[in-house]
Amino acid sequence: MAKALTREPIGGDPLAGMHPVSKLLKYRKFLKLVFRETRPIAGVEKITLPQAVERILARDFRARRFIPNFRRSNFDGYAVRAVDTAGASKSSPVELSLSGFSKPGKPYSRALGRRECVRIFTGAALPHGADAVVMVEYTEANGGIIRVFEEVASGSRYDDVGADIRRGSLLLARGRRIRPLDLPIIASQGVNSVEVAIRPKVLVIPTGNEVKPVGRRLKTSEIYDANSLAVAELIRKRGAIVMTHPPVRDSPRAISDVLSRSRGRYHMIAFIGGSSAGSEDYVARLVAEKGEVFVHGIAISPGRPTLFGRVGKTLVLGIPGHPASSVAVTVLAACPIVDRLSGAIEDAPYSYVRLHSQPDCPEGLTCVRTIRASGDGATLVYKSSSQLSSFLNSDGYILLDPETDEGNGDDGWARLHFF
Amino acid sequence: MAKALTREPIGGDPLAGMHPVSKLLKYRKFLKLVFRETRPIAGVEKITLPQAVERILARDFRARRFIPNFRRSNFDGYAVRAVDTAGASKSSPVELSLSGFSKPGKPYSRALGRRECVRIFTGAALPHGADAVVMVEYTEANGGIIRVFEEVASGSRYDDVGADIRRGSLLLARGRRIRPLDLPIIASQGVNSVEVAIRPKVLVIPTGNEVKPVGRRLKTSEIYDANSLAVAELIRKRGAIVMTHPPVRDSPRAISDVLSRSRGRYHMIAFIGGSSAGSEDYVARLVAEKGEVFVHGIAISPGRPTLFGRVGKTLVLGIPGHPASSVAVTVLAACPIVDRLSGAIEDAPYSYVRLHSQPDCPEGLTCVRTIRASGDGATLVYKSSSQLSSFLNSDGYILLDPETDEGNGDDGWARLHFF
Repeated sequence: MAKALTREPIGGDPLAGMHPVSKLLKYRKFLKLVFRETRPIAGVEKITLPQAVERILARDFRARRFIPNFRRSNFDGYAVRAVDTAGASKSSPVELSLSGFSKPGKPYSRALGRRECVRIFTGAALPHGADAVVMVEYTEANGGIIRVFEEVASGSRYDDVGADIRRGSLLLARGRRIRPLDLPIIASQGVNSVEVAIRPKVLVIPTGNEVKPVGRRLKTSEIYDANSLAVAELIRKRGAIVMTHPPVRDSPRAISDVLSRSRGRYHMIAFIGGSSAGSEDYVARLVAEKGEVFVHGIAISPGRPTLFGRVGKTLVLGIPGHPASSVAVTVLAACPIVDRLSGAIEDAPYSYVRLHSQPDCPEGLTCVRTIRASGDGATLVYKSSSQLSSFLNSDGYILLDPETDEGNGDDGWARLHFF
Repeated sequence: MAKALTREPIGGDPLAGMHPVSKLLKYRKFLKLVFRETRPIAGVEKITLPQAVERILARDFRARRFIPNFRRSNFDGYAVRAVDTAGASKSSPVELSLSGFSKPGKPYSRALGRRECVRIFTGAALPHGADAVVMVEYTEANGGIIRVFEEVASGSRYDDVGADIRRGSLLLARGRRIRPLDLPIIASQGVNSVEVAIRPKVLVIPTGNEVKPVGRRLKTSEIYDANSLAVAELIRKRGAIVMTHPPVRDSPRAISDVLSRSRGRYHMIAFIGGSSAGSEDYVARLVAEKGEVFVHGIAISPGRPTLFGRVGKTLVLGIPGHPASSVAVTVLAACPIVDRLSGAIEDAPYSYVRLHSQPDCPEGLTCVRTIRASGDGATLVYKSSSQLSSFLNSDGYILLDPETDEGNGDDGWARLHFF
């Protein structure tokens, strides 16, 4: 009893007592564990371009063509032989004879002779023999005679073949999450489909006797299953195919049944614990019995009692049931697991944000706090792990990492991720 | 001619000569023009929850229920009458008799009598008569007698009805872009569909004689239509229904034909100019003839020659054809127009990023520069408006606004938007 009395809860988190910080796995070690215990799933599919956005590229994508694949004028003006402009100036122009036009898609077909020039437009091909472009602003046309007021060096004002993209160069690396601006890069190569990793399949299972499907009439102390929507959507956005199971009762039997029925059909099953005592333990006990518990308790806030293990080939994640805990564990644990399964090689990009108020993050924990980004900074909207209002007006979260000096909130700045 | 000679191009942009900065509409004035000349489109649709993400809420969403709608324990322990714990301490506990259990979803049904307590779990309802929770750590059970080692005040360690969310309070405002964490807020109210604005319909039309569909065999000086993919995807992500037209030739006839056929069927038509001279002028001339040109030339880089007007009820956007210009104009012009049409009331949230190198942004212009976010900052990947390689490895862009002191890049920090 004396011992129990000294287990002071940290930061008002009701689970602190059950999960003292010293026994928790550091978040970075958890990420290493994910890397060690899981493998990218085998399987690739070919997908046409607009649909490929947000998918994970399964093969390096290399340039098949030079861009430009002709010498492309960067200006409107005249294609010339640089040597013919020698000595030209405002006071002493040289005169060239106009031989024709080169327009985008309609090149001049002959070679440029001595003291000839060709009217050329931005994006059009330089004719053979030409090695520079004089901007139209530095010229004067008089019928077929073009007066040139500047001397240009060979190679001026056009892009050489491959100046933008060289054939054979690596354009997009395997494991990249395809972004909107990757589409024109791929299309520029004359390619309209790419091979991407197949999506991991994830089943989200809300648990808890008090958790009822939306729309049902509630009795006292019952709540609607709200968490599974956020958990599923965040995992879906990360690239998984997500199914959501109706709420499952808090009993070893009910949880065992759904686990047995579902394992093998999904790459990962994510149980969302009811807030009821015991539910997480049922999941932990079952996973230990039927498979392996990798970790139970991670140094994150909220979300300490997170469980990660495997039954057969199916990964199992036990997500605590408080609303803000379920979201924190989804972004900190479920999403990195999905990334690993789909072979994504990059962190989600992040940035920094100035905080309008000081976040409360218990010593030694990696903290997720919901924020609203506004004009010149971010306002914390986080209340506590159990408060749904921690989500009100949030458009992202800050990640406070005790293991970095930078962006840990101490200096009023923090790492920001948008939802 | 003397005049032409003084029109020195700015920042190497080939279009600078055609569009001197002094004649361009400031970007903020452009946004005001968008607001003035366009109206949210009428029309609302009801949509179920997971699908509602990224849609624009058409009506204020207010709380229909209190959360919690019962007095919810925040801890595992014992529900007590605070008065019964008066004077309790480690050395001098009080003894209460255990009358039953309150579990989540399974409340204790009777009222608590004098010197009674009820074993309660996190998330469970306080019984009538109880007005505090003693944490289990501060108790000792001995059969039906519970020794309590602390005095608690009335109201301790539970959430009162409505402590999280009050019935009638505004949860999500009309015009909000629905985010993943809005889903549990809506579901917590027992609601599984919301009314959202209908999506604006946008037609993207690439133009240029040199622009060919992906897959076609190219002749010298021809290029693949790559821009339309990025433009369409960015507008689609912003919430519009986007169709892409095959490339259209640079002729007044061809452009007039497609405009006549399409107007009235879309809320906006976005022409992407070929890089060929003249194409933008055809669009501008046609819009002026058949409707109204609001502006031709905006103080943005890249993307100066942007055109915005209307033909009948259809808005027309003329997007310059250089790859980086088309993306900049999409994020700076097309997306705000789509936001306005769909009634979105907020700016896209942004943050700041530390720049690893100094961006080049011509005086007086609002600049968009592609970047790669990496660990502790951002690396510019932007080359020039005409270079497709400006997109390589980009995951966002910085927006350099000459009209703000902050985040304009001068101090090594800039506003960051992710794609």
